[in-house]
Amino acid sequence: MTPEKILTYVDHTLLGVTATATDYIRLCDEALTYGVASVCVPPSRVALCAGYLAGKVAVCTVAGFPNGYASSAAKANEAAQAIQDGATEIDMVIDIGKAKEHAWEAILEDIRAVRAATQGYILKVIIETALLDQDEKIALCKVVGESGADFIKTSTGFAPTGATFEDVALLRQHSPAHVHVKAAGGIATLDDAEQFIALGATRLGTSRIVKIVQGMEDAAGY
Amino acid sequence: MTPEKILTYVDHTLLGVTATATDYIRLCDEALTYGVASVCVPPSRVALCAGYLAGKVAVCTVAGFPNGYASSAAKANEAAQAIQDGATEIDMVIDIGKAKEHAWEAILEDIRAVRAATQGYILKVIIETALLDQDEKIALCKVVGESGADFIKTSTGFAPTGATFEDVALLRQHSPAHVHVKAAGGIATLDDAEQFIALGATRLGTSRIVKIVQGMEDAAGY
Repeated sequence: MTPEKILTYVDHTLLGVTATATDYIRLCDEALTYGVASVCVPPSRVALCAGYLAGKVAVCTVAGFPNGYASSAAKANEAAQAIQDGATEIDMVIDIGKAKEHAWEAILEDIRAVRAATQGYILKVIIETALLDQDEKIALCKVVGESGADFIKTSTGFAPTGATFEDVALLRQHSPAHVHVKAAGGIATLDDAEQFIALGATRLGTSRIVKIVQGMEDAAGY
Repeated sequence: MTPEKILTYVDHTLLGVTATATDYIRLCDEALTYGVASVCVPPSRVALCAGYLAGKVAVCTVAGFPNGYASSAAKANEAAQAIQDGATEIDMVIDIGKAKEHAWEAILEDIRAVRAATQGYILKVIIETALLDQDEKIALCKVVGESGADFIKTSTGFAPTGATFEDVALLRQHSPAHVHVKAAGGIATLDDAEQFIALGATRLGTSRIVKIVQGMEDAAGY
């Protein structure tokens, strides 16, 4: 797969807490140059990035991020506000403690509350695989499948580990066909990216792929 | 200072992402036993804890936590929802990236949005000292002082380091007298707690002080 093709899978992501407006504008410039799927930025930066990108690249943001234990009402409101500010994709985090309780119905209701606030937009559901056992991951594939969300996503990038090949394969295997899989967290090379895609991921949350392609172009003297 | 006196300064805190309902009920039972100032729990657990405590111990929760880059509207809505669910204290996080830009007016507006949604309740403002330089910390003492918030608070507990003696002294020195100081993150011993109080902290965010006092009682054969 060409680097150009891989870039079309990338949510070009900047969610560090100390990033400034200058950093977000640079991210947007990179997104415009490299043909990524979206920029993924904090809610407080959506208006800035959506204004700057003017519809040329999609703006993705997060809700209840990264800890997932905001109230359902707060997550839904946060998502609605982000759409009003110009986001067209929302990556929400489940309430991980409730997954540890196996309170699947509560998690389904939580996702549905955000789904109701994001009709017509892309909703991704982060389950934070690093903190779950196999049975919990499989149960969540079913819950996300029933929720009406568009994607199941591995990781926030704030847990001890991010996406693994095993988890992406597992989520693809156990999710209904209408649910896409997003791999995120620690995607470090083009080979890794291609492997995640081969395993069924249709989006990759990462900042590094653009940097790698930039580095290749610099080395080639572009 | 007696352990009993120190306990009256404690926001007995459980904000780990994998904690379950059982853990929160245990936290509430400890709060009832040990005479702490409040329990500090995630927004999605406020209704559970407020119902269980039935007004005998205050319920504190968080907004825009821990990364601080939720939109102001989302933080304000989250705080209002938490109050509706039974919280009487809200610990919000500033937008740290905007502090790194020195966008003080934007941070003041952000805090004021949450203040407007929490009138009559206690509002604490977490500035995440671990990620700031001295000048930024001092500037934020002024901003929080102007915002109408009740407390300036050092840390979320999710940054690389928590409260230090130096930072608590600095925040006390540079904040107006009407702003209280809350030390949080990594408070590990009764001696540390007493030192934070001597330096001017009137609240301590910690889970360990109750455990230490429990341990002393167990050792004494209570």
